[in-house]
Amino acid sequence: MRIIGIAGSLREKSFNRVLLRHAVNYLPDNSSLEIFDLRRIPLYNEDIIQTALPDSVICFRDEINDSDAILIASPEYNYSITGVLKNALDWATTNTLGNLLVRKPIAIMGASIGAWGTTRSQLHLRQVLHAANAKVIARPEIYISNAKSVFDENGFLSDEKILKRMRDLMQALCN
Amino acid sequence: MRIIGIAGSLREKSFNRVLLRHAVNYLPDNSSLEIFDLRRIPLYNEDIIQTALPDSVICFRDEINDSDAILIASPEYNYSITGVLKNALDWATTNTLGNLLVRKPIAIMGASIGAWGTTRSQLHLRQVLHAANAKVIARPEIYISNAKSVFDENGFLSDEKILKRMRDLMQALCN
Amino acid sequence: MRIIGIAGSLREKSFNRVLLRHAVNYLPDNSSLEIFDLRRIPLYNEDIIQTALPDSVICFRDEINDSDAILIASPEYNYSITGVLKNALDWATTNTLGNLLVRKPIAIMGASIGAWGTTRSQLHLRQVLHAANAKVIARPEIYISNAKSVFDENGFLSDEKILKRMRDLMQALCN
Amino acid sequence: MRIIGIAGSLREKSFNRVLLRHAVNYLPDNSSLEIFDLRRIPLYNEDIIQTALPDSVICFRDEINDSDAILIASPEYNYSITGVLKNALDWATTNTLGNLLVRKPIAIMGASIGAWGTTRSQLHLRQVLHAANAKVIARPEIYISNAKSVFDENGFLSDEKILKRMRDLMQALCN
Repeated sequence: MRIIGIAGSLREKSFNRVLLRHAVNYLPDNSSLEIFDLRRIPLYNEDIIQTALPDSVICFRDEINDSDAILIASPEYNYSITGVLKNALDWATTNTLGNLLVRKPIAIMGASIGAWGTTRSQLHLRQVLHAANAKVIARPEIYISNAKSVFDENGFLSDEKILKRMRDLMQALCN
Repeated sequence: MRIIGIAGSLREKSFNRVLLRHAVNYLPDNSSLEIFDLRRIPLYNEDIIQTALPDSVICFRDEINDSDAILIASPEYNYSITGVLKNALDWATTNTLGNLLVRKPIAIMGASIGAWGTTRSQLHLRQVLHAANAKVIARPEIYISNAKSVFDENGFLSDEKILKRMRDLMQALCN
Repeated sequence: MRIIGIAGSLREKSFNRVLLRHAVNYLPDNSSLEIFDLRRIPLYNEDIIQTALPDSVICFRDEINDSDAILIASPEYNYSITGVLKNALDWATTNTLGNLLVRKPIAIMGASIGAWGTTRSQLHLRQVLHAANAKVIARPEIYISNAKSVFDENGFLSDEKILKRMRDLMQALCN
Repeated sequence: MRIIGIAGSLREKSFNRVLLRHAVNYLPDNSSLEIFDLRRIPLYNEDIIQTALPDSVICFRDEINDSDAILIASPEYNYSITGVLKNALDWATTNTLGNLLVRKPIAIMGASIGAWGTTRSQLHLRQVLHAANAKVIARPEIYISNAKSVFDENGFLSDEKILKRMRDLMQALCN
């Protein structure tokens, strides 16, 4: 079982990247999680599909195509997912090249430094992934608020309840 | 009255770019509309704010800051706005540099080649702009479906009802 | 396979009620569809749960509990589902009595007299049903616009494409 | 300035009703707040408009019509507003009798016993009120989580930050 991890933030020390790395500890047997860096993905532009599709996009789409499942962790910007994440999903689903998310198992989670734990952006992310006809894992839901106090200085997460949920989510994703 | 126009699509012949250009014909006196090209805006990344903020971002934020109003036209991808547009809005509203959209008058419209006329993405765009505390014009709403038959080969739009609405929208934006 | 049909409108000649009745023709073998009338369901009120739960609510919850699947057809009011439908869903999912929609297979469709075919209310209905942890059928989606011209005077629907989708939806619901 | 208060919950001791009652303390001079009880409003049904419109609906619509502004407080059920509230809004906006919310100033707030403070239902409520073309106050936003610990046994709310926001909201509503 090959899982691709995608973070909605490009920040090196992003809590959502850290979250993805924690998920590695909760993989079922015979499964692997590789985090794909969205940094080199260009802005979506249908014109460049016709002329010269960037290697980064080809690589991103190949990775998704070769994966059995996807794990997404994103912060919330303006009550929604980040433009960075939406842009990557636009590349993954474009009609011109083919929608790679059809029936793809996808699990989602999110951490925010504020009080509302990315509840609103995850609501929206589920809509976007429904539009893409992905197979989104419904439960458990993982909303982490006040990230600065939940993660310690070394980016370590020790909250038992959250870790338990993460284990359950990875189990559900790999079933 | 200086208005900045933003298209959610980077495609040269995008119907939504064309829509922005039509809006120029319906500006009230003493107002101007300049279309800002999002092509050079990089993916949002808080780390590069600290190191070297790209000129394109500085320029984008200056344009927004100097404008009196914004006009947005976006296609709908996956029942939502494009990642390209969301990414630009993330740059415009980032806490680190300051949210430039607070109480900024913004008008929105959208065209799609399908049957549903960007109804869903505009619903979401209003949420995002509310989150940014922008002053979004409520009416009229402009949803253009079946764009391929509404625009002629030269990208010309002659539908009287839509053009009337565009005039009303620009009037509302400039009041 | 016992399916319960729920219409979001109480109007006798509601297009969405008619839609439910058409679905009967597309049931797979060994399945039945019974339309439940929401007319006697009272407004949700937790206080009356404690004192005297109305028979209509007991009956509604029994029907849902005994069903294998649910089919919902709702008009769109104010870009959302009707209060009538939301009120019924609130009764079906209340913590106090137990959420009966957990993992319940649910199919949705909708007809509107306007141009946008309940696209926005179905988007929202999927959110509500996700919150209830129901198992909502993802595809096909059935959006019927301009209902007055799609249904004939006797409420008969002959559009082959829509009927084909209805057959596919019932198949998916019963699988 | 006559303000009508509407609670999304019918429960006698509902935190959201209590919230409305607290708002009375923060009214600007020369304004009044009267809480309208939705208990007797029937389920929306276009057929009864034609035959015998219930007095409760006539009264509700008269109250809204005579008011200068509306204040809404609602719990969150299934990540959305309650059916009770949506049903009342459907009556207030029906095409058949006329949409009474056009440009009506409306302020919203909400309390939940859970952790997420009605963030999701308020997001949706703003959509519904935009659809109705109401004039919804954008800021401040009031989200109250963990209501059981925020309100004391007598339903008294003493959190200074929340009360400050309530004062600001009432000020914004009456301007």
